[in-house]
Amino acid sequence: MLRTKVFNLLARNGPSRLMSTATKLTTVEVNDKTGIATLTMCRPPVNGLNLELLKDLSTSIGEIESNKSRGLILTSSNATIFSAGLDILEMYKPEKERIRAFWTQLQEVWLALYGSSVPTAAAINGHSPAGGCLLATSCEYRVMLPKFTIGLNETQLGIVAPKWFMASFLSVLPQRQAERALNQGRMFTTEEALQIGLIDETASSKEEAVEKCAAFIGTFAKVNPLARSLTKQQFRAADLQQLENERQDDLEKFLFFVNQPAVQKGLGIYLEGLKKKSKK
Amino acid sequence: MLRTKVFNLLARNGPSRLMSTATKLTTVEVNDKTGIATLTMCRPPVNGLNLELLKDLSTSIGEIESNKSRGLILTSSNATIFSAGLDILEMYKPEKERIRAFWTQLQEVWLALYGSSVPTAAAINGHSPAGGCLLATSCEYRVMLPKFTIGLNETQLGIVAPKWFMASFLSVLPQRQAERALNQGRMFTTEEALQIGLIDETASSKEEAVEKCAAFIGTFAKVNPLARSLTKQQFRAADLQQLENERQDDLEKFLFFVNQPAVQKGLGIYLEGLKKKSKK
Amino acid sequence: MLRTKVFNLLARNGPSRLMSTATKLTTVEVNDKTGIATLTMCRPPVNGLNLELLKDLSTSIGEIESNKSRGLILTSSNATIFSAGLDILEMYKPEKERIRAFWTQLQEVWLALYGSSVPTAAAINGHSPAGGCLLATSCEYRVMLPKFTIGLNETQLGIVAPKWFMASFLSVLPQRQAERALNQGRMFTTEEALQIGLIDETASSKEEAVEKCAAFIGTFAKVNPLARSLTKQQFRAADLQQLENERQDDLEKFLFFVNQPAVQKGLGIYLEGLKKKSKK
Repeated sequence: MLRTKVFNLLARNGPSRLMSTATKLTTVEVNDKTGIATLTMCRPPVNGLNLELLKDLSTSIGEIESNKSRGLILTSSNATIFSAGLDILEMYKPEKERIRAFWTQLQEVWLALYGSSVPTAAAINGHSPAGGCLLATSCEYRVMLPKFTIGLNETQLGIVAPKWFMASFLSVLPQRQAERALNQGRMFTTEEALQIGLIDETASSKEEAVEKCAAFIGTFAKVNPLARSLTKQQFRAADLQQLENERQDDLEKFLFFVNQPAVQKGLGIYLEGLKKKSKK
Repeated sequence: MLRTKVFNLLARNGPSRLMSTATKLTTVEVNDKTGIATLTMCRPPVNGLNLELLKDLSTSIGEIESNKSRGLILTSSNATIFSAGLDILEMYKPEKERIRAFWTQLQEVWLALYGSSVPTAAAINGHSPAGGCLLATSCEYRVMLPKFTIGLNETQLGIVAPKWFMASFLSVLPQRQAERALNQGRMFTTEEALQIGLIDETASSKEEAVEKCAAFIGTFAKVNPLARSLTKQQFRAADLQQLENERQDDLEKFLFFVNQPAVQKGLGIYLEGLKKKSKK
Repeated sequence: MLRTKVFNLLARNGPSRLMSTATKLTTVEVNDKTGIATLTMCRPPVNGLNLELLKDLSTSIGEIESNKSRGLILTSSNATIFSAGLDILEMYKPEKERIRAFWTQLQEVWLALYGSSVPTAAAINGHSPAGGCLLATSCEYRVMLPKFTIGLNETQLGIVAPKWFMASFLSVLPQRQAERALNQGRMFTTEEALQIGLIDETASSKEEAVEKCAAFIGTFAKVNPLARSLTKQQFRAADLQQLENERQDDLEKFLFFVNQPAVQKGLGIYLEGLKKKSKK
């Protein structure tokens, strides 16, 4: 828990301080006026969730928990991408130990964020596919900027979103819509996401999105924090417990699947496509 | 099962008879024309759910079950309050045996009402916070008068609604809305409750609310009562079974929580506030 | 797996071939252009689900699975009835061995259809009560013609829809609406079904309904089929597993219930009514 410097980064909401510089791929700033922490992912170019970013996310969520912040707002330093989801490079021709650590760390992040004792909201200031959507739907509230897309598009990539991705998705969407979107690997535009309830509000700028997230967190101002936290955790207990009970199985299932030649081939083709795109 | 006197209390719906005078804090009247029983809570000043009212509710629900009434309509004798919820005095500086009996009786009432074999509806003719909302959402249908409020506002009082309160709430609201409202301890106005589906209809008077409840119960007129009852109980079996399996745990959890000094302090402050209010 | 003849039955969608003539109460035609199989129930007069039709449904679903069709569209050869549901004659004064085979076969059909690895859709070209509604809600998408009705009306017939009927229903409807409709044994008109989400689209002819089903199945064109299938099966795993675990119990429960004198009497009265109707 380092609180080293004070920056005036969110001038409209009053002074805020940088809570931690110990991590490099995330920053945490606490607004001194509201007591709300903004957790920003900053791993160029697309906030791909690799082992290091996931570790930094875990550390930052832990800091926010233990510093008893009034809330957590998750956002991105990138102007067009919230998070592109799991870093495919972690899954393509993976090194044995590293891929285990990678998936275990992803489980950690979800357990910490979905089960967080503080109010959580996502200021979705860019595209949010797959793992990006997982992070957003693990929060309690979502505000999104226009002209971006969000969804669990795993089937489009030839992979299967595990049960706990589904749990987060189902905490937000009705069963019929959740299943169909998952099967289709559907990406929703901001407008579609608002319509179906996948997000709660839209905002015209990142600043406004963060403000709307802060306003949501402000609705808990008169609520007893302990009672609130226990209520949330009891509500989410079955989902969280399911992964806790099946963590090892879930890891082995993922490893078995990702190591299938057909899956490796698919990921290879996908990466090749990304390279060509970036060269253009 | 006492059926002692006949009163013409619901003239527009034909004669009705008072089914029982054995209990004092509830009355049960059966409409002779429709066969529907109206169960009225009448514990001044606010239908606070204390041990005695809960016992009388259990007895009355049991009577209605065993007399094979065509339906049960739950309402209040109070002009502005359906039920103010659990009587805080049962929880503040509680006597050891009494608080155990109190919580056990609350469990009984919920198991009997949520699992009732007859069609149930609530004519919500006043405010319905916390335990009042629990009773209302344990019924199959809700008609509410305007300008009142309803919701599970436990977190506002520093307490945690147990899992079975959540089950009743989730039987009515989508998961996203249910969780958010629970975490916020949100009270909905009649209009908001209608919009979100927490109630099914509004009515401009208690009489009209009771009539609309009776109309809902009338939709089962052509349905086989045994098949209907088995269908409802199968639908609600998982929720009911969960409390049955965890009754002792649920009781101990409640006792542990309510006896925390911080919770006792919070309840004390709340009661102090109520006293000041009533003196004004 | 017999693929004997080619018929030009769906001219607008290009040539299709009859996949199987081995069964008599169902036909399977595969559209050569789209690769989608249309499974048609054709047991006059009302596609009553008796042992033989259920066996043929199982065989046809199995064929479609093993031939790796791009999708399955379930429809009826009858102009006004999709399926009238379980054939009451299987349940009225039943022969011991046959009724066991009948119910076991119904379980098979549900497990195969609800758990099907290929995309499924129902072109509901007629009334679809009870078991007809079960088949329709076991598919992933529903397109229905106007002026028909659909619903699980078991309670109207004095019987109880088992848990897995409820699971299919709940995969489509919110809990509050699903429970109420089940308890009421409510039949929805096409318009009401669209409004509540029990169906996804309407169509003015069977041909258009099949086309819209094909368009839905077409949304999976760019999705990896294996990932899609595993995603769907994981999503539906809990429902499927529950019946798998309780198959024997579910059978005994059904047999016990159906053999109750009151139930037999009710079925007798119902059959008598049907006879009188058909004589008119």
